[in-house]
Amino acid sequence: MSNTTEHAYRSHYCGTVTENLMDETVTVSGWVHRRRDHGGVIFIDLRDSSGLVQVVVDPDTPQAFAAAERLRAECVIQVTGRVRARPEGTTNPNLPTGQIEILAKDLQVLSMAEPIPFQLDEKVGEDVRLKYRYIDLRRDDMQRNLKLRYQVTRAMRNYLDDNGFMEIETPMLTKSTPEGARDYLVPSRTHPHKFFALPQSPQLFKQLLMMSGFDRYFQITRCFRDEDLRADRQPEFTQLDLETSFLTEEGVMALMEGLVKHIFKEGIGVEFSEDFPRMTYAEAIRKYGVDRPDLRIPLELMDVADLLQDIDFKVFAGPAKDPKGRVAALKVPGGARLTRKEIDEYTKFVGIYGAKGLAWIKVNDLSRGIEGLQSPIVKFFPDQVMEIMERVGAQDGDIVFFGADKAKVVNESLGALRVKLGEDLGMLEGEWAPVWIVDFPMFEEDEKTARLTAIHHPFTQPKATTEELRALEQEEKHQLLSRAYDLVINGIEVGGGSVRIHDSAMQAEVFKLLGISDEEAQEKFGFFLQALKYGAPPHAGMAFGLDRLVMLMAGCDTIRDVIAFPKTQSAACLLTEAPGEVAPEQLRELGLRFREAVK
Amino acid sequence: MSNTTEHAYRSHYCGTVTENLMDETVTVSGWVHRRRDHGGVIFIDLRDSSGLVQVVVDPDTPQAFAAAERLRAECVIQVTGRVRARPEGTTNPNLPTGQIEILAKDLQVLSMAEPIPFQLDEKVGEDVRLKYRYIDLRRDDMQRNLKLRYQVTRAMRNYLDDNGFMEIETPMLTKSTPEGARDYLVPSRTHPHKFFALPQSPQLFKQLLMMSGFDRYFQITRCFRDEDLRADRQPEFTQLDLETSFLTEEGVMALMEGLVKHIFKEGIGVEFSEDFPRMTYAEAIRKYGVDRPDLRIPLELMDVADLLQDIDFKVFAGPAKDPKGRVAALKVPGGARLTRKEIDEYTKFVGIYGAKGLAWIKVNDLSRGIEGLQSPIVKFFPDQVMEIMERVGAQDGDIVFFGADKAKVVNESLGALRVKLGEDLGMLEGEWAPVWIVDFPMFEEDEKTARLTAIHHPFTQPKATTEELRALEQEEKHQLLSRAYDLVINGIEVGGGSVRIHDSAMQAEVFKLLGISDEEAQEKFGFFLQALKYGAPPHAGMAFGLDRLVMLMAGCDTIRDVIAFPKTQSAACLLTEAPGEVAPEQLRELGLRFREAVK
Repeated sequence: MSNTTEHAYRSHYCGTVTENLMDETVTVSGWVHRRRDHGGVIFIDLRDSSGLVQVVVDPDTPQAFAAAERLRAECVIQVTGRVRARPEGTTNPNLPTGQIEILAKDLQVLSMAEPIPFQLDEKVGEDVRLKYRYIDLRRDDMQRNLKLRYQVTRAMRNYLDDNGFMEIETPMLTKSTPEGARDYLVPSRTHPHKFFALPQSPQLFKQLLMMSGFDRYFQITRCFRDEDLRADRQPEFTQLDLETSFLTEEGVMALMEGLVKHIFKEGIGVEFSEDFPRMTYAEAIRKYGVDRPDLRIPLELMDVADLLQDIDFKVFAGPAKDPKGRVAALKVPGGARLTRKEIDEYTKFVGIYGAKGLAWIKVNDLSRGIEGLQSPIVKFFPDQVMEIMERVGAQDGDIVFFGADKAKVVNESLGALRVKLGEDLGMLEGEWAPVWIVDFPMFEEDEKTARLTAIHHPFTQPKATTEELRALEQEEKHQLLSRAYDLVINGIEVGGGSVRIHDSAMQAEVFKLLGISDEEAQEKFGFFLQALKYGAPPHAGMAFGLDRLVMLMAGCDTIRDVIAFPKTQSAACLLTEAPGEVAPEQLRELGLRFREAVK
Repeated sequence: MSNTTEHAYRSHYCGTVTENLMDETVTVSGWVHRRRDHGGVIFIDLRDSSGLVQVVVDPDTPQAFAAAERLRAECVIQVTGRVRARPEGTTNPNLPTGQIEILAKDLQVLSMAEPIPFQLDEKVGEDVRLKYRYIDLRRDDMQRNLKLRYQVTRAMRNYLDDNGFMEIETPMLTKSTPEGARDYLVPSRTHPHKFFALPQSPQLFKQLLMMSGFDRYFQITRCFRDEDLRADRQPEFTQLDLETSFLTEEGVMALMEGLVKHIFKEGIGVEFSEDFPRMTYAEAIRKYGVDRPDLRIPLELMDVADLLQDIDFKVFAGPAKDPKGRVAALKVPGGARLTRKEIDEYTKFVGIYGAKGLAWIKVNDLSRGIEGLQSPIVKFFPDQVMEIMERVGAQDGDIVFFGADKAKVVNESLGALRVKLGEDLGMLEGEWAPVWIVDFPMFEEDEKTARLTAIHHPFTQPKATTEELRALEQEEKHQLLSRAYDLVINGIEVGGGSVRIHDSAMQAEVFKLLGISDEEAQEKFGFFLQALKYGAPPHAGMAFGLDRLVMLMAGCDTIRDVIAFPKTQSAACLLTEAPGEVAPEQLRELGLRFREAVK
């Protein structure tokens, strides 16, 4: 048998071989990034995790030269050679190693590579990237993204440690939790026909940890939701989860704002000198149509319903009179230059959000009054239009868009249009716009069932006492506010939390308001209601979506670019081909058999 | 609605109120640890995560006094009062706060507690502890265990960061991996009748990360095994998982030894001044019967088969002549004092491991030769016994035990007996005995199928080239060593690892030796074999069982005492009652139905 002797693959990382090592002999290992034959000599850009270094192999070292001739991109080699200055005119000031090259004395092929399916600097479709993720991850930007992710989690942990938090692990095989999304289920073999659920969040466990006397808890942990993956979601995602005892929202928000400032500074060198502004949910909806406004965009929705209730034009008058309706204007400075075709595109765009049309007025020359306006709709409310122009502060060259519908449709469509216009017209002001959203409503009505659901979750404390909750009239339920808070940066909700209920009676009352029967509450949350009776401290917490936060900081468009091995929109892994088939005996052991799936 | 104003629950943590704050007014919050009424005054030991402080409530503050009278253990209260010296003779030098007490001016009940099911200082069964885990976790020792666990993981992360490692998350919803244990399966809804598996370890992903160019990876991550839970296992457990490129076993072992030294120092203040010793697998089995020897016990097995092959006594001569047999002696200094009853107990004990009996010789007086020995078996080999006594170095007062059977039975039974005797007779020398076990065999034969299985896993590099593997004779396969290494401390395997195969042809050859067909290898590991062809660096790694390591450091008997919410031996959570029932429509969505489970 061959005897494996000790072997040093490197004396230095590639990216660290600089002119400081001039004339020394070094050993480096890495991937053949590029190979060029030039003037009878072979040049290799050798790459490892630290960067690139240029290796020169000349025919004077025939063994090394022969080996180098066989190399192709992504072969893994080990080179020993002397560091020397690059000839004048061939230095590369963009590389730390750009002043030198290594003249190879010895070159060993550690691992031959077959021709790779795509080059590292080649643009290829995401499916190919995900199938060969181990090649895709070698790219500079993917290396950078995952390093940033690590630096961010490390900065989080350091900050939290400094502030008295302690990481505690909570179970992955657990009971179905009530976040409202669909659970991933795990059949139990030892308890036939029973199932674990993978956690949608450690919500109940972290509250139990507060009842266990752990003053400040955190965990960077995987969470799971079996949802149809719209937009930018993953079936498994990572959350920075936190909980504190004996703090109110003010205490938690101060700690969390400090955390975000710390990771932005440590991660990407961005310093926020000011406190993050705060905005109520009501104000956010009124001005921006959404509860996660991108404040870099200097556009605001303005209500004009009061001016349009009595006109004949039903499209506006109807929603203006409807208590659940909204008529809002969105003024876009300089927008009069939009072409008819562009306006048609935006009309289609708001259609995605259910808007049946997009009314507009171009402001060409205000000094000419209504004559100076260009619009298909002005004729329907000639007596009101100048007051509207005044209210929105229109100036020559502006365009004013209108939404008139159920409030939800107006908010979503104009809210999205605002962001799109801001981006399309290059209106973004400043790079980072954080904002705390507070005073959320406690409940919202499910559109289909008309039942109340919790906007945050049923463990959030309402701004009311248990007695006040019991006395709530039907209409007041919608006005009830909660002690919840979200952190939004650049229009992305990066985290949210609340002060929790720490009283068993209040918790039971909130379940009742949500239409959860005593029996159901006992069955699902009996252990939790019981725990609240044995000495539960006041507590409050928060959770951050790590993937989104890092995506934002890395300037990526999708969270898939900050996850090493993400899944596709259909929740599959193109690399390993998971999910996969299982053997019939595995199913039998679990007491399961197949039936037709309900699509 | 009540307006929730900002509220400061505390100015200080309980455990930090010392004589430095004399005469100052402080606010503390926490749990009523004990309440005593004494001389018309109420004394409360108030507890939070930092410790205890004594609060005094006297009738001069009637509101506070009335509130205090209603309190029982584990109520959560907030107290504002003045710090004053305890009366002489009532100070407690064992507490940092033992010189002072807080005279309450104001006392608010934040959360009443019903009578708790057990007191914190009460010994109760583990079932009760697990059902009310949130009370159990308030105990001093459980708080300490989980704090230690956090400190250990923090020390690990710091050390690894300092050594150029980077944490990268790998998927939880993945493909069935080949660790050999049973997978937990997760049915896919979007891909009907297909399943994810929860990872038994991130083995393939971490190797893919090396192929992705991440030089040094680690992850503290959850792993899952659906095994029948013998002894001290959990269905989900936590692993410190690591992998490095361009290092051999020497490099990895040096880094990992540094890691273990660092966490022992940071976690429990233990410093290892020496290098950890190394021992081959063969030596460990020969001397200790197991590959995870507890070196604190100064007892060793000794082979005596060569002396007993030709005697008539079949019980010894049979195994002595059998190439798969073993006859070994275990000398126990001072063991001649063991009673017949104790020896009978040990005989029963080795029966657990399949030994059909336990032969013994008490050494009463060596100067009298064979006459000085007391034993039921000496008569069967009178001519050999004195040479055996000499070989094992017997002295007056010793006992020598014998095992004779298949080697496996002798190793397991005498190996276990050695540990039990060491503990029972108080022979442990030194507190910590780490040892590296190296030179593991690559394969072992499955007893039932006679097929080869991998001792570590099939990605471990054998000490042979691909060509040598191809030329292996049947018999040589058992002698083949692997480049694997385990770290054992005090008889507990805390971690293991290996140099991995980084060559597609060698990997395919190892699969073949394991009886995995080309087709099966392609189906299960095709993506991995392919990845090895596109530039795989030499790599090696390791994994540590975090639960076991912390258990060892905390001095606990079970890993359940270092896990916040562990499961029982039947893989159930007594707190949440997971696993639980699911709604029929959840099963339908997954395309599954029940059948009788195969027990």
